[in-house]
Amino acid sequence: MKEITIGIDIGGTNTKFGIVDRSGNVLFQDRIKTQEHEEVSDLVNDLAKAIKESIANLGTDYSLVGIGVGAANGNYYKGTIEHATNLKWKGIIPLADMLSKPFGVPTLVTNDANAAAVGEMVYGAARNMKDFVVITLGTGLGSGFVCNGQLINGKHGIAGELGHTTVNYAGRYCNCGKRGCLETYVSATGIKRSVYKLLADHLEPSELRGISFDNLNTKMITEAAVRGDIVAREAFEYTGRILGTKLAETVVHTDPEAIFLFGGLSLAGDLIFKPTIKHMEANLMPVFRGKVKILPSGLQNQAAPILGASSLVWNYLEEKGKVHA
Amino acid sequence: MKEITIGIDIGGTNTKFGIVDRSGNVLFQDRIKTQEHEEVSDLVNDLAKAIKESIANLGTDYSLVGIGVGAANGNYYKGTIEHATNLKWKGIIPLADMLSKPFGVPTLVTNDANAAAVGEMVYGAARNMKDFVVITLGTGLGSGFVCNGQLINGKHGIAGELGHTTVNYAGRYCNCGKRGCLETYVSATGIKRSVYKLLADHLEPSELRGISFDNLNTKMITEAAVRGDIVAREAFEYTGRILGTKLAETVVHTDPEAIFLFGGLSLAGDLIFKPTIKHMEANLMPVFRGKVKILPSGLQNQAAPILGASSLVWNYLEEKGKVHA
Repeated sequence: MKEITIGIDIGGTNTKFGIVDRSGNVLFQDRIKTQEHEEVSDLVNDLAKAIKESIANLGTDYSLVGIGVGAANGNYYKGTIEHATNLKWKGIIPLADMLSKPFGVPTLVTNDANAAAVGEMVYGAARNMKDFVVITLGTGLGSGFVCNGQLINGKHGIAGELGHTTVNYAGRYCNCGKRGCLETYVSATGIKRSVYKLLADHLEPSELRGISFDNLNTKMITEAAVRGDIVAREAFEYTGRILGTKLAETVVHTDPEAIFLFGGLSLAGDLIFKPTIKHMEANLMPVFRGKVKILPSGLQNQAAPILGASSLVWNYLEEKGKVHA
Repeated sequence: MKEITIGIDIGGTNTKFGIVDRSGNVLFQDRIKTQEHEEVSDLVNDLAKAIKESIANLGTDYSLVGIGVGAANGNYYKGTIEHATNLKWKGIIPLADMLSKPFGVPTLVTNDANAAAVGEMVYGAARNMKDFVVITLGTGLGSGFVCNGQLINGKHGIAGELGHTTVNYAGRYCNCGKRGCLETYVSATGIKRSVYKLLADHLEPSELRGISFDNLNTKMITEAAVRGDIVAREAFEYTGRILGTKLAETVVHTDPEAIFLFGGLSLAGDLIFKPTIKHMEANLMPVFRGKVKILPSGLQNQAAPILGASSLVWNYLEEKGKVHA
């Protein structure tokens, strides 16, 4: 029997799921619409049905060992999703309990950035590392910390909220209620805001002057920068400077071997990596200089959220194995 | 046989050592002058001799199980002291090797703030905690992070350098070579610098106007503040504001249950705790508010550095026990 896990990524629009083996091969994947379900129990029922069918289709040689779920506001300790702003179901959803019942296997829930960090350790570029940080650059900025080979969940299960450290106490308004949070500058939304600030401040012509805020996205900014657009290039420099300067602070907390950048913005390559590395090094406490790598995630593909979620299971089983060994 | 450990604290002036049992009772303690020894091997020889005598004096009922050493720039992984600025012996000192030879027991070395964190976990106020931070407020500001019940050493053994996060990029000059580091504001030296800044800025009379920078110390500032001295009170408010604001950033990294303040400045009680708590809460990401305690260390006594160092041994033996169980 070949052991398999299910990885589930619950987003505001789609709930993606996939069957993943220990090497990170995605044997099957599909998605269902999240919000078309009236109650969360309807979503769980549909999901369970689809998963059971897909496992049956694989044949009889496979044994399901666990389910991992990544979701905004996922709490690892409680197996819940709590007060998620991107879902219509309010309050505390006991998702791990709801999903483990129809399958009878361990079900683990965590937030998407923590799932990405475990994914990097289990399948990705951190396979030989015990101390690293993953920064996910999407609509917001998420982060996951691994120290001594273990994911840091923290006392309340909410560790790794780097996106809400402060860049400027009188700065941009943030969804969290504060001002000047890192994610208001460094994220897909953040760089859009920076482009608009730069278009306001500067006189240079820019192809981005013809695009509305609602239509602008990271890909357009990247392509404009590659074509030499001054405002787009400056937006990356500005974003990298803020990220690098902040990472110099993060590094002295847990002394990681590497910081991985994941998600749309990180696909811009040198445009974002060069200023980030430069400004991190320039602001680092001297004893840390030249020691901490900034690297692209090893999971830069469509299935990354599924991989991250499924990796929770392998990590859980291996941790459990260690304790019982 | 009753199991005992040796705790050693190597400082620029004195090297303190003590015999400590599992409950944190210091059965004997003494000190020798650090820098009166020409070579570090002379210090180790004298120390070994004094320790052997003191164990012999206890009687035959005791069994030494290990030695712990706390020292600036101590590296846990290598058992070394590396390029310490407070010692006259330069380069890399293989202290664990040198000390374990005459005793034939495991010898562990770490920096003093990490030793304080382990001490808090083994004997102090963090005995039932798995996720916490210790901030040591001495000449500088040190910090030690415990997550999942383990000390965070980091990839290079230099985790926990909160003292060198930045408060103001154009701020006070720091020994580390940067400007505006947290420890230039929040430490025994930092509050002195703040008093001098406030005496320069303000017109109010203050009893501290009669004291030179060299003669001023935390105790004088505390006593003046208790007597109502406006500048001294403002210095505590200023220090607590900077510390609290910075701790709001630290908290979102590892989500601790508590942050313990240790050392001279922390003995000022409400004068420092009140503004620290107030400004941490005001600057926290909302989901963390009201969750993280700021508490005084449970090891506020003369023997704390010895306790911290000795605790490394119990922690090491227990971790080892877990792995082998």
